[in-house]
Amino acid sequence: MHIDLHEIDTYAKRWIKEAGQRIRDSFPKTLNVTTKSNPNDLVTNIDQETEQFFINKINETFPDHQILGEEGYGDTISKLSGVVWIIDPIDGTMNFVHQQRNFAISIGIYVNGEGRIGLIYDVVHDELYHVIKGNGVFLNDEQIPELEERSVSESIIALNATWVTENKRLPPELLAPLVKAARGTRSYGSAALEMVYVATGRIDAYITPRLAPWDFAAGIIMIEELGGVATNLRGQQLDLLKENSVFVSKPGLHADIMQNFLENGKW
Amino acid sequence: MHIDLHEIDTYAKRWIKEAGQRIRDSFPKTLNVTTKSNPNDLVTNIDQETEQFFINKINETFPDHQILGEEGYGDTISKLSGVVWIIDPIDGTMNFVHQQRNFAISIGIYVNGEGRIGLIYDVVHDELYHVIKGNGVFLNDEQIPELEERSVSESIIALNATWVTENKRLPPELLAPLVKAARGTRSYGSAALEMVYVATGRIDAYITPRLAPWDFAAGIIMIEELGGVATNLRGQQLDLLKENSVFVSKPGLHADIMQNFLENGKW
Repeated sequence: MHIDLHEIDTYAKRWIKEAGQRIRDSFPKTLNVTTKSNPNDLVTNIDQETEQFFINKINETFPDHQILGEEGYGDTISKLSGVVWIIDPIDGTMNFVHQQRNFAISIGIYVNGEGRIGLIYDVVHDELYHVIKGNGVFLNDEQIPELEERSVSESIIALNATWVTENKRLPPELLAPLVKAARGTRSYGSAALEMVYVATGRIDAYITPRLAPWDFAAGIIMIEELGGVATNLRGQQLDLLKENSVFVSKPGLHADIMQNFLENGKW
Repeated sequence: MHIDLHEIDTYAKRWIKEAGQRIRDSFPKTLNVTTKSNPNDLVTNIDQETEQFFINKINETFPDHQILGEEGYGDTISKLSGVVWIIDPIDGTMNFVHQQRNFAISIGIYVNGEGRIGLIYDVVHDELYHVIKGNGVFLNDEQIPELEERSVSESIIALNATWVTENKRLPPELLAPLVKAARGTRSYGSAALEMVYVATGRIDAYITPRLAPWDFAAGIIMIEELGGVATNLRGQQLDLLKENSVFVSKPGLHADIMQNFLENGKW
């Protein structure tokens, strides 16, 4: 199979912009919001239509590519071989429903399991974050500089309050000392945007105990391209075929937090 | 003293836009960041220059108005009589330094202690939130609708992780159940923006244990104009001349949280 990454990239960019335009055009219309497995796991007609839009485009143009999508209209994939598009049509659906901002379209394109292209589109602000592995990361046309080391005490960390209160996934006392030690914490409610916030250095790390592959597939390619580190909360490699805890960070800071707050994964 | 609110408003709008333009123009330059009372209380030359800009304009045009400003170049004010401008030249300085976004200029204009004009300018996104009391709240030229009631379980609440971990201001167990009961929590790191997020309904409440008057002076005028409620964390009226805990919310939700989570102030 001949794979022309630049051709794939050209289409991906065109489609993500087109999908974003459709989402912006949908704003005056009433959303049809339904819930998935639990009442706070919202999904809208726009999530579903956007995923379907990508699937139609990809199937037409690249019939041998596979698609892993949040809304489940794509393929059932048991291993990452060939070209796989990992798509979140609207990352941050709760923000989308409540705010009509602070959400993004996220597309990671993997070839035989390796992240090669990542696109995260902040639709409302028309900001496209983009990487082709080995060619740098861009925000629209501007290249994003390499990530530099930073100490915990000078860091802003994206960490939701949920994870330092009683919850099903993490002992709340594990990260509480990090909240105290950091310069500040933030929470934006969109994993894809939190990833590009790390990539651009606006925050220094992002920690969350459960993400699906489509939430982080694009973002980790960008962060690693810039010298950042992406693992799960135990410091292990992320698995693109299942849910993971996720800890992405500037270099140096990652090792520091892993050792001094995440007990090198021994919790 | 004759007070022409529309004249004051016209100047205030012009100056806030002009100050925003100056801040945007400053971005390529290196920031001169210093710290105030503690190492995380950052201040920049831009904060100081922006406050000075407003003071010069106001003194020239309205010599009998008083000014209460974060950087302390204004007047020392012991009671709110006559016209008082309450100014935060850059609300969200940590975001300004780290992100060059997610900060705002906030100006509340009070006449004999009553909030009459509020302006919050999201400089990077060129979004001006604006109220003249009794005339509605606007985002640029678009009128913001009245706030509607919402249940806790369907709410997004701005609440920093700090306040549910060990801290000097609040028992961490006080708000932990609210984090669990709400649909979601967020934290943006700028009180003024969190206030306009409540005003526009993007979030449903914002809770924080310590703000200075310039952090909330403009925002509470907007929230109250739209039918929302602004008190301290014990349900009492806010004092514009000292630090306060702040709890702003949609109507209904405020009473619900006050009764079921904030123990009607009896903590």
